[in-house]
Formats: sequence, C-alpha cells, structure tokens
Amino acid sequence: MRNLFLPLLFILLQPVSAMNNKIDLSWSVGYSASKNETPKKFVHAEVPGAVQLDIARAEKYPPLAFDENYRSFGWMEDNFYTYRTTFSCPELNGQRLFFHSNGIDYQFDLFLNDKLLFSQEGMFTYVDIDLTDHLQKENELKILIYPVPKLHASPADRTQAAHVAKPPVSYGWDWHPRLVPLGIWDDTYLEIRNEAYLIDFFMHYELSDSFDLARLILWIDGNQLTDKYYSWKLTDMTGNEALIAEGKISANKSQVSGLELKNPELWWPHDHGTPYLYTSVLQIKNKEGEILDEEVRKIGFRRVKLVMNEGAWNEPDDFPKTRSVPPAQIEINGHKIFAKGSNWVNPDIFPGRINRERYAELIAMGKNANFNIFRIWGGGIVNKESFFELCDEMGMLVWQEFPLACNNYPDDQHYLSILEQEATSIVRRLRKHPSVAMWCGGNELFNSWSGMTDQSLPLRLLNSICLEYDPHTPYNPTSPLMGMAHGNYIFRYFDGKEVFQAMNDAHFTAYTEFGMPGLSPRSVLEKIIPKQELFPPKPGTAWEAHHAFNAWVGATWLCDDILDFYFGKAKNLDELIEQSQLLQSEGYKAIFEEARRQKPYCSMAINWCYQEPWPTAANNSLIVYPDIPKPAYFAVSDACRPVCGSARLPKFQWKENEYFSADLFILNDKFEKSAGYTLRAKLQCENDTIEILRWDSPALQPNQNIAGPTVRYRLPHWQGDRFKLLIEVDGKPEYNSEYTLLYSPDELKEKKTATMNLD
Amino acid sequence: MRNLFLPLLFILLQPVSAMNNKIDLSWSVGYSASKNETPKKFVHAEVPGAVQLDIARAEKYPPLAFDENYRSFGWMEDNFYTYRTTFSCPELNGQRLFFHSNGIDYQFDLFLNDKLLFSQEGMFTYVDIDLTDHLQKENELKILIYPVPKLHASPADRTQAAHVAKPPVSYGWDWHPRLVPLGIWDDTYLEIRNEAYLIDFFMHYELSDSFDLARLILWIDGNQLTDKYYSWKLTDMTGNEALIAEGKISANKSQVSGLELKNPELWWPHDHGTPYLYTSVLQIKNKEGEILDEEVRKIGFRRVKLVMNEGAWNEPDDFPKTRSVPPAQIEINGHKIFAKGSNWVNPDIFPGRINRERYAELIAMGKNANFNIFRIWGGGIVNKESFFELCDEMGMLVWQEFPLACNNYPDDQHYLSILEQEATSIVRRLRKHPSVAMWCGGNELFNSWSGMTDQSLPLRLLNSICLEYDPHTPYNPTSPLMGMAHGNYIFRYFDGKEVFQAMNDAHFTAYTEFGMPGLSPRSVLEKIIPKQELFPPKPGTAWEAHHAFNAWVGATWLCDDILDFYFGKAKNLDELIEQSQLLQSEGYKAIFEEARRQKPYCSMAINWCYQEPWPTAANNSLIVYPDIPKPAYFAVSDACRPVCGSARLPKFQWKENEYFSADLFILNDKFEKSAGYTLRAKLQCENDTIEILRWDSPALQPNQNIAGPTVRYRLPHWQGDRFKLLIEVDGKPEYNSEYTLLYSPDELKEKKTATMNLD
Repeated sequence: MRNLFLPLLFILLQPVSAMNNKIDLSWSVGYSASKNETPKKFVHAEVPGAVQLDIARAEKYPPLAFDENYRSFGWMEDNFYTYRTTFSCPELNGQRLFFHSNGIDYQFDLFLNDKLLFSQEGMFTYVDIDLTDHLQKENELKILIYPVPKLHASPADRTQAAHVAKPPVSYGWDWHPRLVPLGIWDDTYLEIRNEAYLIDFFMHYELSDSFDLARLILWIDGNQLTDKYYSWKLTDMTGNEALIAEGKISANKSQVSGLELKNPELWWPHDHGTPYLYTSVLQIKNKEGEILDEEVRKIGFRRVKLVMNEGAWNEPDDFPKTRSVPPAQIEINGHKIFAKGSNWVNPDIFPGRINRERYAELIAMGKNANFNIFRIWGGGIVNKESFFELCDEMGMLVWQEFPLACNNYPDDQHYLSILEQEATSIVRRLRKHPSVAMWCGGNELFNSWSGMTDQSLPLRLLNSICLEYDPHTPYNPTSPLMGMAHGNYIFRYFDGKEVFQAMNDAHFTAYTEFGMPGLSPRSVLEKIIPKQELFPPKPGTAWEAHHAFNAWVGATWLCDDILDFYFGKAKNLDELIEQSQLLQSEGYKAIFEEARRQKPYCSMAINWCYQEPWPTAANNSLIVYPDIPKPAYFAVSDACRPVCGSARLPKFQWKENEYFSADLFILNDKFEKSAGYTLRAKLQCENDTIEILRWDSPALQPNQNIAGPTVRYRLPHWQGDRFKLLIEVDGKPEYNSEYTLLYSPDELKEKKTATMNLD
Repeated sequence: MRNLFLPLLFILLQPVSAMNNKIDLSWSVGYSASKNETPKKFVHAEVPGAVQLDIARAEKYPPLAFDENYRSFGWMEDNFYTYRTTFSCPELNGQRLFFHSNGIDYQFDLFLNDKLLFSQEGMFTYVDIDLTDHLQKENELKILIYPVPKLHASPADRTQAAHVAKPPVSYGWDWHPRLVPLGIWDDTYLEIRNEAYLIDFFMHYELSDSFDLARLILWIDGNQLTDKYYSWKLTDMTGNEALIAEGKISANKSQVSGLELKNPELWWPHDHGTPYLYTSVLQIKNKEGEILDEEVRKIGFRRVKLVMNEGAWNEPDDFPKTRSVPPAQIEINGHKIFAKGSNWVNPDIFPGRINRERYAELIAMGKNANFNIFRIWGGGIVNKESFFELCDEMGMLVWQEFPLACNNYPDDQHYLSILEQEATSIVRRLRKHPSVAMWCGGNELFNSWSGMTDQSLPLRLLNSICLEYDPHTPYNPTSPLMGMAHGNYIFRYFDGKEVFQAMNDAHFTAYTEFGMPGLSPRSVLEKIIPKQELFPPKPGTAWEAHHAFNAWVGATWLCDDILDFYFGKAKNLDELIEQSQLLQSEGYKAIFEEARRQKPYCSMAINWCYQEPWPTAANNSLIVYPDIPKPAYFAVSDACRPVCGSARLPKFQWKENEYFSADLFILNDKFEKSAGYTLRAKLQCENDTIEILRWDSPALQPNQNIAGPTVRYRLPHWQGDRFKLLIEVDGKPEYNSEYTLLYSPDELKEKKTATMNLD
C-alpha cells in the first residue's frame, strides 16, 4: 500500500521530549487574495487559535453567536493567510532548534527567512522541522495557510470537503453554521533539543488469557540514538516500581522485548472498576549517564474486543440464508459491558480554542451522566492529546472515528496518500491510550447520502493502517453497520409512530445514534436571538440561523408540529421551552432504557449528540454550548444508572378509562450479585397517588436485567393534563424512576359534568 | 503488519525463466512413523501426485471410489513421508542450479545430501532453492513431508484444519470423503539458470475512465540484474507490435513507468465480448545483447468493480435505520453484467492429479453451460497456473477465495504469519490474470458454524494484502455477505415450502450458493456401489459412503423423503434416478431463472456445486466425476442462455380443474437492442397441446428483462401424471423454454368415471 499511495511519507509523531527547552513565539497574521501577494497588514494572532478569530478580534466583530453575525465571517474562506513571527537565534551549544506544531489547519507552507522549508496538507499530522541549518542571527518564520479547500464552488455544503481529510462539519451541518476554521489550532513552539532525541516511544503489550501477565515490547524511535543508553521505568499508582529495563541502543529504531509484568493492574472504564494507570518514564542517556531526552506518560493495560451480541449467531434462520450481523458487543478485560454514552462533536466551532479545561469539564459531565463511552463522530476533529489523557484518567471509553462523514470520499491517489499520512499519525499517536477502545472509518458512509461501499479504498486503507499499527483494537469501517442503527431524531416519527412504539419494536445490536430535540433555556435564547424575534419562533429569523427551522427535515429542530400535536399552541416562550424539554427528556429516557432492556442482544446506547459547537436555539444536544445541561441531561443520567427500575411504555398520550399498561424491569449493568428488590408502581396526578402494583423481584445476577410483570390499571378521572408513573424501590430511593405522560379526561363525561353543573 | 506477524517473510514467486533448462527428476517415496526414522522401503513416486496414490499403486489397492475402499487410506494420515531422488551434478559453466516446485503439501523440510537447506509450511508458496553451493558430483535430494496437520484428535472433521492454510475439504465434507492428501502436488524440477535471472515480472496498469488509454508500470524483480538491460514487447492477437520498451536496469527491483497503450483492446468475459489477450515478452540481456532470461505471458486489460445493486441504496427505509447492503453487482469495463456460474470445487480428491487437460475440459463445459463465472470455493485448493491461463483464454471470470472455509481461523501469530505468506504468494501470482475478478476471504465465515467476525484478524489481514498487491480488484471477506444468500440445498424445504415459493419470495442481491441434489447416472452408480446394494438404496451401505444418506441434514443427498412425497416409492433404480434428476433439473432451472428475473436488484446466480472430486451417488453437482454431465447440467445451460423465454411458477404439483398460472418473462442479458418477440405459452400432456396465451413483447432494451403477462388456465382432465409448460418464441426456437410439472386428475371424477365404466 505504501508504494502505491504515498510516494513520500512524512509521518511526524508527537515529540516526546520533556527534557528540552520550549520557546514560545508571538505571532501575527494577515491575509491576501493570492499565494504570492504579501498581506497588506498584520494583526495579533492567538496561537493556538484560528485566523478568523484573530481578524474578528482585530476588527471588533460583534459576538459571533448572536443573531446571524456568523455570516460576516463568510468572506474569509477564500483568502490566503500568513502567520509571521520573529525570533533571535538562541545559543545552541551543539544542540538543535526545532519548530514544532501539534496541528496546522489545513494546507500550508513553512518559510524561514523567506526560504521554503516544508509543506503539508493535513491538520492531524504533527509538524516537526529542524531549523538549525537555516538559522540567522535574527529570523523570520512564516506559515502560509491556503484557503478553505473546496471540491467545487457549489453547493456550499459538506460535499465541498469530500476530497480532503478536513472535518466536513464546519462546511455546514444541521446544528453547525457554515464557518470553516483555518490556522494554527494546537500547541506550537520552538524547541531546543540534543542531537540525540526521541521521535516516538511505544510500549506494545499483550495480556495473557487470564490477565495475570503482560508481555511487553518497547519500541524506541529517535535520532542519533545508536550507542546511547535507554533506561525505562514503570511505576504503579502508589509510586512503587513495577518494572525496569536498561540497556544500550543499537539503532535509531530499536525494540526491547522479553519484558513481562506479572499481575498487572488492569485499566477499567469508571463504572466497572478503576481506570488504573501506570507511569512510564523512558530516558535516553549517553555513556556518562547524562539524560539526553526523556518521555513521561501514563500507561494502562486493558484488552478490548468486539464480540458477537448474544443471540446474534442464531440469526438469520431462513433459507436462502445470509450472514449473521457483525459484532457490536464491547468486551473489556473479558467482561461484556453495556456501552452507554453520547456522540461527541466539536465543543467549539474553532478547535483552536479548545483546551484541557474545556475537555475536563465536559468529560466529567459525561462521567456524571453515567456514560462510559464517547463516540467521537467522524464529522468533527480528532481531539487534542489532553482529551485522551483525561479519558484515560477518568475511565471513559473512546470510539474514535477518522475525519470522514456523509461524503463519498474517492479512491484517488492524492486523497489516499493524505488519508494515509493523517490516519497513520492519528493511530500511532492514539494507540497509546487505554481509553481508545475502537477505531471507525467515519460516519454513515454506507448509507445512500454518502455512497461509499465496502469496496471503497479509503475504508480498506484505514482497516489496513489500524491492523498494522494497532491490530488488537477493533476496527469498523463506519457506523451504522448491519444490525446497528442510527435515528430517529424526533419524538413522533413521519409515519405517526411515537418513539415508544418504534423503539419497543426495534431489534438492533446497537443504537449508536438517536436524537431527541429540545429547546435551549431562555437564558441562552436571549443571548442569540434578538428580543423582538423571541416569541413566537419563526422561520427566516435568528431561530432558523440557530437550527430551530429547516435544519434537518421540515420542522426540525423546533418540531413545532409535534409540540402543537401534543400540547396545542404554546402561549409563551417559557411554556414552549417546558414542552419541548419535556419531550426531549421523556423521549431520550425511553430510548436509553429500551436499548438497555434489549440487552444482551443490544449492547450499546449512544445518543445524538452530547454537546454543541455554539449555542443553538434547538438541538438534539444534552448540553448547550458551552456547558449548560438541559433537563434531558439529567433524565439521561438517570436512565443510565448502573441499577434502576424501568418501565416499557407503549405510548405517551393516555385517556380516562383507558387501561394504562407498562412492563416493569430492573435494569442492571453491575457485575455484583445482589438480593432482589421490592418495587412499587404508582400513578400520580397532581395530589392523587395510587399504588397499582407491588413486585418482589428475584435476586440480581451479574450484568443481567430482570423483566417483571406488566401493570394494568384503568385510568381514573383526573383534573390534570399530565400524570406520572413512579417506580419506587423499597429502601433504595436512588433506584427510583419516574415518567411523565399526557392525560385527557373523557370528553363526554366532561361535557356531561359541565352540563350537570349548569343545571 | 509485516513486522507483527511475519518476522521472516519468504515469498517465492513463480520462476519466470523460459530460457533456462529444466531437468526432470525421478522420485521415490517411503514412510515412517517419526521424523528421524528412515523409511523401511521406498516405492516409485509420481510427481506431481500424492503420497497416498504412490502407496496405493505400489501396494495394489483396489479402486478408491468403489464401495468403502477409501477408508483403507485412513492410516496414512499420521506418518512422515520422505521423497527421494538422486542426480548427477550437471555442467554448470558459471550458471546456477535451482530446485523449484510449484507446490508441496503441506509442511516439509528439504535436504540436499542430508543437509537441511529449507523448511516451509504452506502448499501455495512456490519453492525455489539455489542448490549450487551445496552440490556434489552425485547428489541425493530428500523432501520430508510432515503428517496431516490436526488441531485436535477429535472430532475427525474439518475443525482439525482450523489452524492451517490447508484446504479443509479433504478432512471430510458432505460430498467429499475423509482423505487428506500430502506430498508434491504441482510441477517440480531442477533448473539451470544464469546468475542473472528474473524472480518476478508484473505489468501493472490503470485504464482511463473512457477505456481509451492504459497507463503501464513494469515491475521487474530478479537476481543480479543491476546494469543488465531489459527489452519488453507487447504484441496483439494478430501478432502486431503494440508497445515496446527497452533500457538499462539499475537495481534488482526496478520499475519502468511512463508507458502508455492507446485504445487497448479490452478483455471481456466470453458472453459479452472477446477475451482479448496480448502477448508480453520480457527479456533480460547483457551488454552484448545475449538473452539471459525471458518471460512470455498473456496479458489482458480490463477494469472490474463491485458496485451497488440497483435499488439497494433505497433500503433500509425505516428508522431506526441501519446501513445499505454491500455491493454485489459486477461491473466489467463499465458494463454491469449478470454473473451466472457455479461453485468450483476440487475436481479430484488429489489435486496432484489435476492437469491442464482436466481444467480445459471442465472450463469449456462451463462456457458451454452459458456460465461466465466460477466461484473458487474456499474449502478447496487454489488452482494451478494452467487453470487461470485457460480462464483468461476462454473468457471465464474467477471469484477466487483463500483457503478458509467453515472454521474459526484464529488470531494467533503463527497462523497469521503462514496465512500472510500464502496469501501474498497467491495474490502476487494471480493478480496477473484478467480473469481474476474478485478476491474473497473464504466460505461462510460469518455464519454461526464458522464463528469468525468482521474483527477476525485473518480476514483483516487478507483485506490488507489484497489492497497492497491488487488494490483495484474487489475484496470481500466472505460469502455470503449481508444481502447475499446461500442455500437452500433441497427441492422441498424443511418448512414444507417448495423451492418455487421460497425463491419467488426471496429478495437478495446475489445467490452465491444454492443446491439441488440429483442422483448420478446408473453407469456411475454401478462403478461405486456393490451390485447387491444398488436397489433400494439404504443407509449404512456404499450409498451412505457416497453421500446419499446423512451427508448434510437427514435424508440428503438422496432426499428419498422428498422423492416419496412427490412420486411415491420408486419401483426400481432407473425410476428413482429419473425422478431425482427431474427434481434436480426443474429445481435448478427455477432458481437460476428466478435469480435472473430479480435482476437488476439481483446480480448473481452461482449454484452449489459444479463438479465433484470423486464419483458420488447423489450430490448437488451438475457434473459427475470426472466429466459426466447430469440432466441438470443441460437444464441449467438452458436457464443461463443470454436471451430466453422464462416462466415464474408458483408451485410444482397441480390438479385437474385448478387454475394453472405462471408469469411470463423474456430474460435478456445481452447489451444489443432488438425488436420484440412473439411468445406462445402452451400446456402439453402426452399428446395434448393447448396454446393458452400469445404475447407480443415490446422491444428488448440492453441488459433488461421484460416482464410479460400472467397466464391463467383451468387445467383440463388429462390421463398423464406430468405435464409441460412450453414457452415458444416465434422464429427463435433457440429461445424456447419448457418446464415439467406434476399433475393429478380429480380423484372424485376419476372414481366416478371408474364407476361409470363398471356400469
């Protein structure tokens, strides 16, 4: 493959040098209409950041998220941008000076003192250039950024990005405005290094079947390492030395094998154990014992597999007979776990603004929502290093996609060579993280709107790269695969079915996308929509620019048609928000819980989507930009508790005298056995609470739900228009669940009552 | 990948030397119980052949195929075998002497004058050893063959081969006796070569979108080629020079690029054009122009793709929504063709006996049956070179599987390294053949009885190898994939449905296996079954050993339960044979034609199976060993005619007074337009022929079937118990079709008539 698609392979890995001196730079940026034209003026540039942010700051643009202000950034797409910085040559004393960047978006040339030193296409391959031989006393470094790549002039949508390894989301999506970032988007600096330095260090390991032994191989890759010495130490979380190795290095690329760690502590997702991390320290030394370079990182031991879902081998049954569905059951360290989580999208329109603190806050919220997995959706970026460090630490699994989504990425040689460069960089970087549990080619590539197939060379190439560099982590070409499902994204489907019926009838191994739209809170809406447009929401206003109308199909994401159907016209904004958020909460709860009830055939519930890149008016997100949880966030957190009562509901809307029914369950993802519980099902409307069933469940077996009775109860006459089903667990209020449903009294009886009153 | 699984990669390709002298050897073989024990005696060995054949010949075993004689070979599985030959050292004059073999089955050591020179596991990697430096005046060459590899002692079935790249079929299958060949199975000789010789030569090409230009790269790989000269010539089928290239060679592995062939004649499968072949001659010369080595081969230009089946993108429709099925539509040179063919199994228990003549005969019969594809089923061998040369010449497409079938091949490093070696050899050898249209990992690997999944490393590895060496030929991990189907293999299904109903209701993109069992003719039965056992067939006799009973499920392959159901107990063997062959013929016709009627959503009909490795009593095969066509062969040939009348029948068994019905079609796989035809549907019973409908069809559009009317006719009173539906095409008798169906007169009426006669 190498030969065919990538004649010149520049794979630049993370510089692992901790010993060396970093020098920060101060940047400015300017733009020009053509490549050879010098920008007329330069303004201060924040690095990492984006050229658009620098210009908006310098030219005092009004807030991007308000009204339709984002449109004023449109003109910036087709310019060239020049980043410029100057620096004096430091004293090197035989050392070397490198320029290093963790990411420059998207195509660029790098000049030192007007000499072209390097060019690259691709924002996920680290840039690492030895400047030493080109240095003057005073130096000017320039990075020329090419315009937004576009396959064609129109339509101005994601299809413009069908030929590049640049995230297509910023070309416009149903929840993302058209705004395509460019520029230096990750840590960037000068670095003084010794002649001998590490380029890459990888600790490969394999766990024995019984997990009592890890066999290790250290892969050391560096410059001028021959005849140097390595010293490697692994310490556990208590600071005790677990393993050491030392020796002479015979070549720049070396392997140290034969290392064994007995009874390694295993890394677990947070809801099934401790995300145990060891500390690895590798030092490169010279004969005198002087440390020339060093890498310090956290390392975790885990085995992850995708295995067949229980019952999946029994299908298909009939002749002519096709194949069984592919596996979608995650097995960690020999344990089959139910994956609960959310689709992670870019938490900012400008990835350059995302930092460790933003990541930490959002990952912690995921953990608090009882999630154990994020699917890093292929329409967005591959996150920065700190994201993965934090997932490692917090015990959050990562389903990592490559930057392909909803396009037909071509078989052509240029695209394949860039994809190979980018994917190789990504896999070699991320395979070191125990949290990375699955590779995936990208989003919805095997559906009609994308048009890729199993024969598409980009996906065969990604399979091959993952196999080469990380063979023991699963690879899927896309999501959904056969047996897995995406959608729907509304409470009431186009055919009139509600989410309840559709989900109760569904039979899939994994629900890896499903949405439920809800309005943002008033405080957010007031920040993005002009006051006079706030109520009632109308198409063609800031509501539409913020995805409330015509974002996906018809009335999405406001779904005013569905709200009207259930509630009639809302009288004011607060009422509308409350109704929308109620549907979002109850809808999401229904899907998460039903997916769990379908365990073990079903093994995953991952909603669309977690957060959002800017404040939307209405969206499927659980968290409004930047970090505001919607009520649905809490409903979902409840639905994902390791153990909880649950009810399968046949529908949302009920009437007086109708037989209410619901199937009771205890959902249980824990591996500990426990005694049974007493559950009470109660109906509650306003002040009226009726216990309709008491169920003494059998004992809980590890990782097994218990199906209980179906309650049936003729609905009485109530005054309210809503009621609740309460599932209460005696002595375990933390396992209680509740569902809010709509109610209407018998109209005839109402009329009769009214008439009687008149009499 | 290379690094992980194959620390020492020996990929030995076909020696392409035509200039050099081959020396045939005379071999003997002996066996011993252990590796270090010398055989007590040696007997003459036929090479290529198998050790079992040599021993049986020497020890005058009775005919293998008769009765249960094959069982007497069982003891041979667990011995070591030593092949021995002696030769005098030829005069070399600075040349080199090589030992070369195209295949040694399965694991072996090679000794020259008792010195171990080479070891290998794997029968598909050519063996090519330079003996020169180890030669004495008189030499003894020995090849020690290891016993049949077995993963476990029991069960003694295909699962014993789940860890090797040896075809599992010989471990016993429902149509193959347990008999596992060992030994030298392909051409083997000594060869005198110049110091400079070719190891491999590959002409890579890519066709322009409009097929008017082929861009070529010549890959030359050899020994001592530096500073030699190459001279390459391509001539067309009329002997005219199409392209030449000459130059100096700079390294042992060299590329010549920049070559272009304008308006190349394209290679087509025989039913869509000429399988056009060019002749390529590559010569290696020294400065003086002396030819040092030469390769002559046929080359064809074609582009093959697997594209989406028409309509497949429209499914699935409902939410939650999974992916569309993978593509199964073959596109050759931009034309979507319907693939009609058969599953090719080993045409002999002992692949060593198969030669060019056997291949030629069988491939020609396939062509005459209007087949355009063979699926080379993964349970058997990868065929010898002459098979592919003949498919190239005769315009037959090849779907080539790797030797994996119905087992769970493991992720372990040893197996992966052998698979990598074997698959690399296979792909590098076969990619040169235009007939090879598809790679496939193996048979039914994603079904419960195998247990492999999309995550299995052997299949990910095969994808990676095919991508590396032959990226523009499609790769599927197995058959069936989702949307494709295997089975059923009987006329009347377990649930009582007939093949007619089951197939008419089916909705698949490709039927890549479907069987219909039939008895062999009497002449064959008499050669394999003792006279006293011939009738009636009983389990526990030679009938069972020849797969008539308990071969697959229950009564297969005789299916006496089904025969009894339709015909009652047969009175004699000839009647039984006739009934069985009728069901086979009508059943196969129904499936092939229905699959074609489902075009364009359906794109393939490939029956199970074409031939057989020994004479069976009953089998799904169309051709009885070695080359005897069953009646079904001719029925299938008719069903596969490029243009023909066709009828979709709802069932097999009809009664007097019932409304007979059938949907009329014209099946058309041709790309030429033509005027419409007049079709006449007739019913015929004994001497009574009734025309029940005349249909004037519209004009034929390229590669499109035409659906016509549904005929309905109340069945009259007939005396016979069978009748025929005739579809006659005015002026085109070669497009006529006919179907034989069962008939029963009204019983009450019969009785009444009988009573009346009595009166």
